[in-house]
Amino acid sequence: MLGPLDTLIKALKRLPGVGEKTATRYAFYILNAGSDDVQSLIESIKAVKAELKLCSVCFHLTDVDPCEICSNSRRDSTRLCVVETPLDVLTIEKSGIFRGLYHVLHGVLVPLEAIGPDDIRLPELVERVKKGGVEEVILALNPTVEGESTAGFIRDQLKGTGVTVSRIAYGIPVGSSLEYTDPLTLGRALENRIKL
Amino acid sequence: MLGPLDTLIKALKRLPGVGEKTATRYAFYILNAGSDDVQSLIESIKAVKAELKLCSVCFHLTDVDPCEICSNSRRDSTRLCVVETPLDVLTIEKSGIFRGLYHVLHGVLVPLEAIGPDDIRLPELVERVKKGGVEEVILALNPTVEGESTAGFIRDQLKGTGVTVSRIAYGIPVGSSLEYTDPLTLGRALENRIKL
Repeated sequence: MLGPLDTLIKALKRLPGVGEKTATRYAFYILNAGSDDVQSLIESIKAVKAELKLCSVCFHLTDVDPCEICSNSRRDSTRLCVVETPLDVLTIEKSGIFRGLYHVLHGVLVPLEAIGPDDIRLPELVERVKKGGVEEVILALNPTVEGESTAGFIRDQLKGTGVTVSRIAYGIPVGSSLEYTDPLTLGRALENRIKL
Repeated sequence: MLGPLDTLIKALKRLPGVGEKTATRYAFYILNAGSDDVQSLIESIKAVKAELKLCSVCFHLTDVDPCEICSNSRRDSTRLCVVETPLDVLTIEKSGIFRGLYHVLHGVLVPLEAIGPDDIRLPELVERVKKGGVEEVILALNPTVEGESTAGFIRDQLKGTGVTVSRIAYGIPVGSSLEYTDPLTLGRALENRIKL
């Protein structure tokens, strides 16, 4: 009787973190929304799949190749920020602090799942650095076991190229309090203390 | 550069309770999902808009008219459960406890927003009851000020029809504890106590 609704709820449950109840709420929103809103949702889903590709230089998402960041001559091409996902690029761009270029790995090394250097955009990073022009590689990987071992691996791979390899600081988030900081972060914050 | 992505994020932010971050996560899921998954999402959105209508008897959502509940001869047509939304019907049906028929009001009376009896399916309810065959009208409206005043209004409208008008019980949710119950609910639970 409500077959189409059940099918939609099932499809919406595939979105990350969405269960039966949230999917049902979304489905009822769609059911009650104006057909203009629904049409624009459908069109935007189609467009995102059809128009976005990976930049052939940095592997960020883009609809032109090379992407607008890579082809922007006002950005500092001597600094390369290495991230795991395109979402990380968006996050850093939103902060407006970094003016260099990016390299998106599309993952990290996970030996237990047999994800090796050739499964992510790591050979392309090494090649890009060896081509010259880069002075510093800033690793902005997630502070996970895999992120850190990938950072170590990249550092080793880039040895001998004369390029400085750094990683972003781990510590207490600004605006947070010691009380709510987990022991691991606190340990890192103490370890990486800065002389005043 | 990421125009299509921004457009999609904007469209997804119209879903109830979805902000920038959640919309971005959904957009990236859609971006990375297989085209089969995305196609089935689009198809199910279209189907829900195209195929679902309101039942001409009870105003629940349906793809056949009258709906499968109204046309099911094994259900008890002497008992009518009045709810605010089609979602409420789904919730009660899921419990499997009620075997009567429904009447969906599609809202409640909100005098402050000028939502009167003719703006919801209230005249249709009165007409349906006056046609005869109904012995009890069970009001399953939300325990809000508007829900309760609508319940009172319906009771008055059905006076003289000889039909019993009842409302579902308010009280402490089963499995919950007194400690976490708000004072209003607790007050209602005490007021509506049952002799053992």
